[in-house]
Amino acid sequence: MQAHSAPLPRTGIGIDTHAFAPESSDGAAQVPLWLAGLLWEGERGLSGHSDGDAVAHAAADALFSAAGVGDLGTHFGTDRPEWKGASGVRLLSEAARIVRAAGFEIGNVAVQFVGNRPKFSPRRAEAEAVLSAAAGAPVSVSATTSDGLGFPGRGEGITAMATALVVAVNP
Amino acid sequence: MQAHSAPLPRTGIGIDTHAFAPESSDGAAQVPLWLAGLLWEGERGLSGHSDGDAVAHAAADALFSAAGVGDLGTHFGTDRPEWKGASGVRLLSEAARIVRAAGFEIGNVAVQFVGNRPKFSPRRAEAEAVLSAAAGAPVSVSATTSDGLGFPGRGEGITAMATALVVAVNP
Amino acid sequence: MQAHSAPLPRTGIGIDTHAFAPESSDGAAQVPLWLAGLLWEGERGLSGHSDGDAVAHAAADALFSAAGVGDLGTHFGTDRPEWKGASGVRLLSEAARIVRAAGFEIGNVAVQFVGNRPKFSPRRAEAEAVLSAAAGAPVSVSATTSDGLGFPGRGEGITAMATALVVAVNP
Repeated sequence: MQAHSAPLPRTGIGIDTHAFAPESSDGAAQVPLWLAGLLWEGERGLSGHSDGDAVAHAAADALFSAAGVGDLGTHFGTDRPEWKGASGVRLLSEAARIVRAAGFEIGNVAVQFVGNRPKFSPRRAEAEAVLSAAAGAPVSVSATTSDGLGFPGRGEGITAMATALVVAVNP
Repeated sequence: MQAHSAPLPRTGIGIDTHAFAPESSDGAAQVPLWLAGLLWEGERGLSGHSDGDAVAHAAADALFSAAGVGDLGTHFGTDRPEWKGASGVRLLSEAARIVRAAGFEIGNVAVQFVGNRPKFSPRRAEAEAVLSAAAGAPVSVSATTSDGLGFPGRGEGITAMATALVVAVNP
Repeated sequence: MQAHSAPLPRTGIGIDTHAFAPESSDGAAQVPLWLAGLLWEGERGLSGHSDGDAVAHAAADALFSAAGVGDLGTHFGTDRPEWKGASGVRLLSEAARIVRAAGFEIGNVAVQFVGNRPKFSPRRAEAEAVLSAAAGAPVSVSATTSDGLGFPGRGEGITAMATALVVAVNP
């Protein structure tokens, strides 16, 4: 039983979905796309009370989930107007602070998003650097499509799923 | 290599989806809603051979997945009629017993569900207490919507995804 | 702090979706179904540049995600023609090799797929043996349906979600 003198790490899950915002009549993007902590020039943006960054939001929710301290709505919901319009990066940073304040060390966060666009791989390293800095821990991001199926396949929106690992440091 | 003298923990995944049951002609709910171990008065219920508690079911499947001992169908399927109609809480409790009997300690379970209803946050603590008691380990539950997209966004049903962490105690 | 002298394990996530291939006019399956490392005789196959094995692909992506070394597109994408048509088992095996070469030990991989077919439980042990051999670590596979909802419920395709746990051995 000596192996268990250290507390077991805890795993968490986070899911976030945002619809693409309507395009303007002349076809120019009206809302900028923020995803995985980056601005994607010329891409159609995602809707949301915030910046719609499904990747950053899923990462934050996975951290809350692992620590068992609620979710995005608990901490940044409509009854917390000071967070209205906050960037996904800022929410992730605050989520990491809250989880640490609750007595946890953050091991890592991993996110995968499902969507036809944007083409992610050329900017993966940049996105991971921004999100890892926000979380103060490694955040990996990967991308996939849904082979044309469902709302991501029809280009209606993006869904992101994340997992995180934390461990209690003040058990 | 001393660091690895203790077995690595194992992670698992669980997904469960249930459709909302049809409403009666006078608009009153015919089937009660059981979700996350709680009865939700006045809410439309979920369909299923069981109580349709997608959150409890996903939690149980994540435990089975982490331990590598099958899934809900293996343990509670149609060839096990004694489990027909069993509550999600009872299935989760039995799943935890099976996983421990297979030689694992349960670290934690984390579930997030996607659905327009019910409004979850006021009863989060209550739900987590019921499910944690059933599992004999911390179960965190969080909620989100899908921004109007897909079947959860159309109000057709609820999907829940879970992760769990276990470690072998009799390696 | 002695408990943290060993590196924390890292968790990862993987999602993969493939549509069922069209059936031939006489109703016979044109494309064989490969899923979870197995050939399913008489079942309609999945489309894809590869063999369409969503379970094996999600497992590989979860390993990449946990290690933070990109995704299927990074390693096996269209700019790597040598992997065109490779089996899911071969991709999973190579993913495990890449993750180990990056300095990680693989703890386990857990996958659940959502689909109406094939009926999985009779071949679970066989599938897990094939995938575990490919990964060189325990791979558990479970199955569920989506209660008739969404594209898996309409029988349009299969989606698989996976999680994996790795730990740095050369930190």
